[in-house]
Amino acid sequence: MKQPSKIADLIEAFCCLPGVGPRTAQRMVMHLLERDRDAGLNLSERLQEAMVSVVNCERCRNLCEDRLCDICADDRRQMDMLCVVETPADVMAIEQSGSYNGGYFVLLGHLSPIDGIGPEELGLDKFGDRLQGVREVIVATNSTVEGEATAHYISEMLAQTDIAVSRIAHGIPIGGELEFVDGGTLGHALSGRIRMNSGGER
Amino acid sequence: MKQPSKIADLIEAFCCLPGVGPRTAQRMVMHLLERDRDAGLNLSERLQEAMVSVVNCERCRNLCEDRLCDICADDRRQMDMLCVVETPADVMAIEQSGSYNGGYFVLLGHLSPIDGIGPEELGLDKFGDRLQGVREVIVATNSTVEGEATAHYISEMLAQTDIAVSRIAHGIPIGGELEFVDGGTLGHALSGRIRMNSGGER
Repeated sequence: MKQPSKIADLIEAFCCLPGVGPRTAQRMVMHLLERDRDAGLNLSERLQEAMVSVVNCERCRNLCEDRLCDICADDRRQMDMLCVVETPADVMAIEQSGSYNGGYFVLLGHLSPIDGIGPEELGLDKFGDRLQGVREVIVATNSTVEGEATAHYISEMLAQTDIAVSRIAHGIPIGGELEFVDGGTLGHALSGRIRMNSGGER
Repeated sequence: MKQPSKIADLIEAFCCLPGVGPRTAQRMVMHLLERDRDAGLNLSERLQEAMVSVVNCERCRNLCEDRLCDICADDRRQMDMLCVVETPADVMAIEQSGSYNGGYFVLLGHLSPIDGIGPEELGLDKFGDRLQGVREVIVATNSTVEGEATAHYISEMLAQTDIAVSRIAHGIPIGGELEFVDGGTLGHALSGRIRMNSGGER
Protein backbone atom coordinates (compact mmCIF):
# COMPACT_ATOMS: atom_id res chain seq x y z
CA MET A 1 0.00 0.00 0.00
CA LYS A 2 1.10 3.52 -0.73
CA GLN A 3 0.27 5.85 2.12
CA PRO A 4 -2.21 8.53 1.10
CA SER A 5 0.15 11.03 -0.51
CA LYS A 6 -0.75 14.01 1.68
CA ILE A 7 0.11 12.02 4.79
CA ALA A 8 3.37 10.81 3.24
CA ASP A 9 4.22 14.38 2.20
CA LEU A 10 3.54 15.65 5.71
CA ILE A 11 5.70 12.92 7.27
CA GLU A 12 8.52 13.87 4.92
CA ALA A 13 8.08 17.58 5.72
CA PHE A 14 8.41 16.86 9.46
CA CYS A 15 11.79 15.21 8.82
CA CYS A 16 13.29 18.68 8.26
CA LEU A 17 13.22 19.21 12.03
CA PRO A 18 16.40 18.49 14.00
CA GLY A 19 16.29 15.10 15.71
CA VAL A 20 13.19 13.96 13.81
CA GLY A 21 13.50 10.88 11.58
CA PRO A 22 10.80 9.06 9.60
CA ARG A 23 9.45 7.09 12.57
CA THR A 24 9.17 10.08 14.90
CA ALA A 25 7.66 12.11 12.05
CA GLN A 26 5.06 9.39 11.47
CA ARG A 27 4.19 9.38 15.17
CA MET A 28 3.77 13.18 15.14
CA VAL A 29 1.58 13.11 12.04
CA MET A 30 -0.61 10.31 13.39
CA HIS A 31 -0.99 12.12 16.69
CA LEU A 32 -2.14 15.32 14.97
CA LEU A 33 -4.46 13.57 12.51
CA GLU A 34 -6.05 11.24 15.02
CA ARG A 35 -6.22 13.38 18.08
CA ASP A 36 -5.50 17.05 17.62
CA ARG A 37 -6.24 18.63 14.24
CA ASP A 38 -6.81 22.05 15.80
CA ALA A 39 -3.29 22.02 17.21
CA GLY A 40 -2.01 21.00 13.77
CA LEU A 41 -3.78 23.89 12.08
CA ASN A 42 -2.56 26.26 14.77
CA LEU A 43 1.01 25.03 14.28
CA SER A 44 0.65 25.56 10.53
CA GLU A 45 -0.48 29.17 10.99
CA ARG A 46 2.17 30.03 13.60
CA LEU A 47 4.86 28.54 11.33
CA GLN A 48 3.70 30.56 8.34
CA GLU A 49 3.62 33.77 10.38
CA ALA A 50 7.01 33.30 11.97
CA MET A 51 8.83 32.19 8.81
CA VAL A 52 7.56 35.23 6.94
CA SER A 53 7.75 37.97 9.54
CA VAL A 54 10.73 37.21 11.78
CA VAL A 55 13.78 39.21 10.66
CA ASN A 56 17.16 40.15 12.12
CA CYS A 57 17.55 43.22 14.34
CA GLU A 58 19.36 46.02 12.51
CA ARG A 59 21.58 46.71 15.47
CA CYS A 60 22.47 43.35 17.02
CA ARG A 61 21.31 40.83 14.37
CA ASN A 62 19.19 38.97 16.93
CA LEU A 63 15.85 37.59 15.69
CA CYS A 64 12.97 40.05 16.00
CA GLU A 65 9.80 41.29 14.34
CA ASP A 66 10.55 45.02 14.07
CA ARG A 67 13.51 47.09 12.98
CA LEU A 68 15.06 46.68 16.45
CA CYS A 69 14.78 43.69 18.79
CA ASP A 70 13.23 44.01 22.26
CA ILE A 71 16.68 44.10 23.87
CA CYS A 72 18.09 46.90 21.70
CA ALA A 73 14.84 48.85 22.06
CA ASP A 74 14.86 48.54 25.87
CA ASP A 75 16.43 51.71 27.32
CA ARG A 76 16.64 50.25 30.83
CA ARG A 77 19.42 47.91 29.76
CA GLN A 78 23.08 48.67 30.40
CA MET A 79 24.17 49.26 26.85
CA ASP A 80 27.81 49.92 27.78
CA MET A 81 28.21 46.12 28.02
CA LEU A 82 28.13 44.12 24.82
CA CYS A 83 28.00 40.32 24.72
CA VAL A 84 29.05 38.70 21.44
CA VAL A 85 27.40 35.32 20.75
CA GLU A 86 27.15 32.99 17.77
CA THR A 87 23.38 32.44 17.51
CA PRO A 88 20.02 33.85 18.65
CA ALA A 89 19.60 30.61 20.65
CA ASP A 90 22.65 31.68 22.68
CA VAL A 91 20.96 35.03 23.40
CA MET A 92 17.89 33.14 24.61
CA ALA A 93 19.99 30.90 26.85
CA ILE A 94 21.76 33.87 28.47
CA GLU A 95 18.50 35.80 28.86
CA GLN A 96 16.83 32.80 30.46
CA SER A 97 19.67 32.59 33.00
CA GLY A 98 18.67 36.09 34.12
CA SER A 99 22.27 36.99 34.90
CA TYR A 100 23.02 39.61 32.23
CA ASN A 101 21.49 42.98 31.58
CA GLY A 102 23.58 44.44 28.76
CA GLY A 103 23.37 44.43 24.96
CA TYR A 104 24.22 41.71 22.47
CA PHE A 105 25.85 41.28 19.11
CA VAL A 106 24.86 38.11 17.26
CA LEU A 107 27.38 36.81 14.73
CA LEU A 108 24.95 34.28 13.19
CA GLY A 109 27.84 31.85 12.84
CA HIS A 110 31.59 31.68 13.43
CA LEU A 111 34.68 32.27 11.32
CA SER A 112 35.10 29.33 8.98
CA PRO A 113 37.24 30.18 5.94
CA ILE A 114 36.62 26.71 4.41
CA ASP A 115 32.91 27.47 4.18
CA GLY A 116 33.59 31.00 2.93
CA ILE A 117 32.52 32.57 6.23
CA GLY A 118 34.80 35.52 6.94
CA PRO A 119 34.43 38.63 9.14
CA GLU A 120 31.98 40.29 6.72
CA GLU A 121 29.52 37.38 6.83
CA LEU A 122 29.53 37.69 10.63
CA GLY A 123 28.80 41.42 10.44
CA LEU A 124 32.20 42.21 11.99
CA ASP A 125 32.85 44.87 9.32
CA LYS A 126 30.01 46.89 10.85
CA PHE A 127 30.88 45.84 14.40
CA GLY A 128 32.86 49.06 14.90
CA ASP A 129 29.67 51.16 14.53
CA ARG A 130 28.18 49.26 17.47
CA LEU A 131 30.99 50.15 19.87
CA GLN A 132 30.10 53.78 20.63
CA GLY A 133 29.77 54.15 24.38
CA VAL A 134 30.70 50.51 25.00
CA ARG A 135 32.99 49.91 27.97
CA GLU A 136 33.30 46.14 27.87
CA VAL A 137 32.87 43.43 25.25
CA ILE A 138 32.19 39.92 26.60
CA VAL A 139 33.04 37.31 24.00
CA ALA A 140 30.71 34.33 24.51
CA THR A 141 31.33 32.34 21.34
CA ASN A 142 31.38 28.56 21.77
CA SER A 143 34.53 26.84 22.98
CA THR A 144 35.00 24.99 19.68
CA VAL A 145 38.02 25.55 17.44
CA GLU A 146 36.02 27.96 15.26
CA GLY A 147 34.48 29.71 18.25
CA GLU A 148 37.90 30.24 19.82
CA ALA A 149 39.31 31.55 16.53
CA THR A 150 36.39 33.97 16.28
CA ALA A 151 36.95 35.09 19.87
CA HIS A 152 40.64 35.67 19.13
CA TYR A 153 39.81 37.66 15.98
CA ILE A 154 37.45 39.93 17.95
CA SER A 155 39.96 40.55 20.73
CA GLU A 156 42.58 41.46 18.09
CA MET A 157 40.11 43.88 16.46
CA LEU A 158 39.68 45.68 19.76
CA ALA A 159 43.36 45.61 20.78
CA GLN A 160 43.94 49.24 19.77
CA THR A 161 40.86 50.62 21.57
CA ASP A 162 40.40 51.22 25.29
CA ILE A 163 37.44 48.84 25.44
CA ALA A 164 37.86 45.95 27.88
CA VAL A 165 37.50 42.57 26.19
CA SER A 166 36.69 39.51 28.30
CA ARG A 167 35.97 35.89 27.53
CA ILE A 168 33.12 34.06 29.27
CA ALA A 169 34.54 31.63 31.90
CA HIS A 170 34.95 27.94 31.14
CA GLY A 171 35.16 25.38 33.94
CA ILE A 172 33.28 22.81 35.98
CA PRO A 173 29.50 23.18 35.54
CA ILE A 174 27.66 24.13 38.74
CA GLY A 175 26.47 20.92 40.40
CA GLY A 176 28.91 18.92 38.28
CA GLU A 177 31.18 16.38 39.92
CA LEU A 178 34.90 16.52 39.26
CA GLU A 179 35.28 12.85 38.48
CA PHE A 180 32.81 13.03 35.59
CA VAL A 181 34.21 16.16 33.98
CA ASP A 182 36.30 15.70 30.82
CA GLY A 183 40.01 16.51 30.76
CA GLY A 184 39.73 19.59 28.54
CA THR A 185 37.23 21.21 30.87
CA LEU A 186 39.32 20.29 33.94
CA GLY A 187 42.41 21.81 32.33
CA HIS A 188 40.47 25.03 31.63
CA ALA A 189 39.06 25.04 35.15
CA LEU A 190 42.54 24.72 36.69
CA SER A 191 44.25 27.31 34.54
CA GLY A 192 41.33 29.72 35.00
CA ARG A 193 41.28 29.32 38.82
CA ILE A 194 40.21 32.33 40.88
CA ARG A 195 41.97 33.59 44.04
CA MET A 196 39.93 33.07 47.25
CA ASN A 197 42.12 34.93 49.79
CA SER A 198 44.93 37.46 49.53
CA GLY A 199 47.67 35.42 51.30
CA GLY A 200 51.11 35.44 49.71
CA GLU A 201 50.48 38.73 47.89
CA ARG A 202 53.01 41.50 48.26
CA MET B 1 13.63 39.90 27.93
CA LYS B 2 10.39 38.71 26.42
CA GLN B 3 11.00 36.64 23.33
CA PRO B 4 9.48 38.21 20.21
CA SER B 5 5.89 37.03 20.52
CA LYS B 6 5.69 35.23 17.18
CA ILE B 7 8.71 33.13 18.09
CA ALA B 8 7.27 32.38 21.53
CA ASP B 9 3.92 31.48 19.96
CA LEU B 10 5.61 29.14 17.50
CA ILE B 11 7.60 27.43 20.27
CA GLU B 12 4.38 26.91 22.20
CA ALA B 13 2.63 25.55 19.10
CA PHE B 14 5.39 22.96 18.58
CA CYS B 15 4.81 21.67 22.12
CA CYS B 16 1.59 20.03 20.89
CA LEU B 17 3.69 17.32 19.24
CA PRO B 18 4.25 14.07 21.16
CA GLY B 19 7.65 13.96 22.86
CA VAL B 20 8.32 17.64 22.27
CA GLY B 21 8.80 19.88 25.32
CA PRO B 22 9.73 23.59 25.48
CA ARG B 23 13.48 23.02 24.98
CA THR B 24 13.12 20.71 21.98
CA ALA B 25 10.50 23.07 20.54
CA GLN B 26 12.92 26.00 20.91
CA ARG B 27 15.65 24.04 19.14
CA MET B 28 13.28 23.22 16.28
CA VAL B 29 12.13 26.82 15.93
CA MET B 30 15.69 28.18 15.99
CA HIS B 31 16.77 25.63 13.40
CA LEU B 32 13.97 26.63 11.04
CA LEU B 33 14.41 30.39 11.55
CA GLU B 34 18.19 30.41 11.30
CA ARG B 35 18.80 27.77 8.70
CA ASP B 36 15.80 26.53 6.80
CA ARG B 37 12.85 28.88 6.33
CA ASP B 38 11.80 27.18 3.10
CA ALA B 39 11.42 23.86 4.92
CA GLY B 40 9.41 25.70 7.59
CA LEU B 41 7.04 27.19 5.01
CA ASN B 42 6.77 23.81 3.29
CA LEU B 43 5.91 22.14 6.60
CA SER B 44 3.27 24.81 7.24
CA GLU B 45 1.59 24.17 3.86
CA ARG B 46 1.73 20.37 4.13
CA LEU B 47 0.23 20.59 7.64
CA GLN B 48 -2.60 22.83 6.49
CA GLU B 49 -3.40 20.51 3.56
CA ALA B 50 -3.32 17.30 5.55
CA MET B 51 -5.31 18.63 8.52
CA VAL B 52 -8.07 19.86 6.23
CA SER B 53 -8.27 17.12 3.63
CA VAL B 54 -7.43 13.84 5.36
CA VAL B 55 -10.65 12.04 6.35
CA ASN B 56 -11.61 8.53 7.47
CA CYS B 57 -12.37 5.83 4.90
CA GLU B 58 -16.12 5.09 4.77
CA ARG B 59 -15.53 1.36 4.78
CA CYS B 60 -12.63 0.70 7.14
CA ARG B 61 -12.18 4.03 8.97
CA ASN B 62 -8.49 4.19 8.02
CA LEU B 63 -7.11 7.65 7.18
CA CYS B 64 -7.47 8.61 3.50
CA GLU B 65 -8.16 11.49 1.15
CA ASP B 66 -11.13 10.10 -0.79
CA ARG B 67 -14.31 8.29 0.07
CA LEU B 68 -12.41 5.00 0.22
CA CYS B 69 -8.82 4.41 1.30
CA ASP B 70 -6.23 2.93 -1.06
CA ILE B 71 -6.56 -0.47 0.58
CA CYS B 72 -10.35 -0.70 0.34
CA ALA B 73 -10.19 0.59 -3.25
CA ASP B 74 -7.57 -1.99 -4.25
CA ASP B 75 -9.35 -4.97 -5.85
CA ARG B 76 -6.21 -7.11 -5.87
CA ARG B 77 -6.40 -7.51 -2.11
CA GLN B 78 -7.88 -10.57 -0.45
CA MET B 79 -10.97 -8.99 1.02
CA ASP B 80 -12.18 -12.19 2.66
CA MET B 81 -9.64 -11.53 5.43
CA LEU B 82 -10.30 -8.66 7.81
CA CYS B 83 -7.77 -7.38 10.32
CA VAL B 84 -9.18 -5.33 13.20
CA VAL B 85 -6.72 -2.77 14.64
CA GLU B 86 -6.95 0.15 17.04
CA THR B 87 -5.34 2.95 15.03
CA PRO B 88 -4.28 3.95 11.49
CA ALA B 89 -0.68 3.79 12.76
CA ASP B 90 -1.24 0.07 13.38
CA VAL B 91 -2.39 -0.30 9.74
CA MET B 92 0.81 1.42 8.62
CA ALA B 93 2.96 -0.86 10.80
CA ILE B 94 1.33 -4.02 9.40
CA GLU B 95 1.52 -2.72 5.82
CA GLN B 96 5.19 -1.86 6.26
CA SER B 97 5.86 -5.44 7.42
CA GLY B 98 4.59 -6.57 4.00
CA SER B 99 3.14 -9.75 5.48
CA TYR B 100 -0.60 -9.17 5.08
CA ASN B 101 -2.71 -8.68 2.01
CA GLY B 102 -6.29 -8.50 3.30
CA GLY B 103 -8.61 -5.73 4.41
CA TYR B 104 -8.71 -3.76 7.65
CA PHE B 105 -11.17 -2.37 10.10
CA VAL B 106 -9.85 0.50 12.21
CA LEU B 107 -11.55 1.00 15.59
CA LEU B 108 -9.93 4.41 16.22
CA GLY B 109 -9.60 3.47 19.88
CA HIS B 110 -10.51 0.66 22.26
CA LEU B 111 -13.42 -0.08 24.58
CA SER B 112 -13.12 2.14 27.62
CA PRO B 113 -16.42 2.61 29.46
CA ILE B 114 -14.84 5.07 31.91
CA ASP B 115 -14.08 7.45 29.04
CA GLY B 116 -17.50 6.84 27.49
CA ILE B 117 -16.06 4.80 24.64
CA GLY B 118 -18.45 1.95 23.88
CA PRO B 119 -18.99 -0.24 20.80
CA GLU B 120 -20.72 2.57 18.88
CA GLU B 121 -17.77 4.95 19.21
CA LEU B 122 -15.57 2.20 17.74
CA GLY B 123 -17.91 1.71 14.78
CA LEU B 124 -18.76 -1.82 15.96
CA ASP B 125 -22.47 -1.17 15.47
CA LYS B 126 -21.78 -0.96 11.73
CA PHE B 127 -19.14 -3.70 11.85
CA GLY B 128 -21.73 -6.28 10.76
CA ASP B 129 -22.17 -4.53 7.38
CA ARG B 130 -18.48 -5.08 6.73
CA LEU B 131 -18.59 -8.84 7.18
CA GLN B 132 -20.21 -9.87 3.88
CA GLY B 133 -17.93 -12.35 2.17
CA VAL B 134 -15.43 -12.31 5.07
CA ARG B 135 -14.01 -15.72 5.99
CA GLU B 136 -11.66 -14.77 8.80
CA VAL B 137 -11.35 -11.86 11.23
CA ILE B 138 -7.89 -11.34 12.73
CA VAL B 139 -8.12 -9.32 15.93
CA ALA B 140 -4.92 -7.27 16.25
CA THR B 141 -5.83 -4.89 19.06
CA ASN B 142 -3.04 -4.11 21.51
CA SER B 143 -2.30 -6.49 24.35
CA THR B 144 -3.35 -3.98 27.01
CA VAL B 145 -6.29 -4.56 29.33
CA GLU B 146 -8.53 -2.42 27.08
CA GLY B 147 -7.22 -4.03 23.92
CA GLU B 148 -7.88 -7.52 25.29
CA ALA B 149 -11.38 -6.53 26.40
CA THR B 150 -12.06 -5.15 22.91
CA ALA B 151 -10.75 -8.36 21.33
CA HIS B 152 -12.99 -10.42 23.60
CA TYR B 153 -16.02 -8.26 22.73
CA ILE B 154 -15.41 -8.75 19.01
CA SER B 155 -15.01 -12.52 19.32
CA GLU B 156 -18.28 -12.65 21.26
CA MET B 157 -19.99 -10.59 18.54
CA LEU B 158 -18.94 -13.16 15.95
CA ALA B 159 -19.65 -16.26 18.08
CA GLN B 160 -22.96 -16.98 16.30
CA THR B 161 -21.55 -16.62 12.78
CA ASP B 162 -19.41 -19.10 10.85
CA ILE B 163 -16.60 -16.56 10.47
CA ALA B 164 -13.25 -17.71 11.91
CA VAL B 165 -11.94 -15.30 14.55
CA SER B 166 -8.22 -15.35 15.39
CA ARG B 167 -6.02 -13.29 17.67
CA ILE B 168 -2.62 -12.09 16.46
CA ALA B 169 0.15 -14.14 18.19
CA HIS B 170 1.98 -12.80 21.24
CA GLY B 171 5.39 -14.12 22.19
CA ILE B 172 9.13 -13.58 22.03
CA PRO B 173 10.03 -10.90 19.45
CA ILE B 174 12.10 -12.22 16.53
CA GLY B 175 15.77 -11.67 17.39
CA GLY B 176 14.84 -11.19 21.04
CA GLU B 177 16.75 -13.10 23.70
CA LEU B 178 14.82 -15.11 26.27
CA GLU B 179 16.67 -13.74 29.26
CA PHE B 180 15.69 -10.14 28.46
CA VAL B 181 12.01 -10.83 27.80
CA ASP B 182 9.51 -9.84 30.53
CA GLY B 183 7.55 -12.45 32.44
CA GLY B 184 4.17 -11.63 30.92
CA THR B 185 5.48 -12.11 27.40
CA LEU B 186 7.26 -15.34 28.39
CA GLY B 187 4.03 -16.69 29.91
CA HIS B 188 2.16 -15.86 26.70
CA ALA B 189 4.90 -17.43 24.60
CA LEU B 190 4.76 -20.68 26.61
CA SER B 191 0.99 -21.05 26.73
CA GLY B 192 0.79 -20.17 23.02
CA ARG B 193 3.48 -22.70 22.00
CA ILE B 194 3.14 -24.32 18.59
CA ARG B 195 3.63 -28.04 17.92
CA MET B 196 6.77 -28.84 15.85
CA ASN B 197 6.30 -32.60 15.26
CA SER B 198 3.39 -34.97 15.54
CA GLY B 199 4.88 -37.39 18.13
CA GLY B 200 2.65 -38.55 20.97
CA GLU B 201 -0.51 -37.81 19.02
CA ARG B 202 -3.12 -40.46 18.80
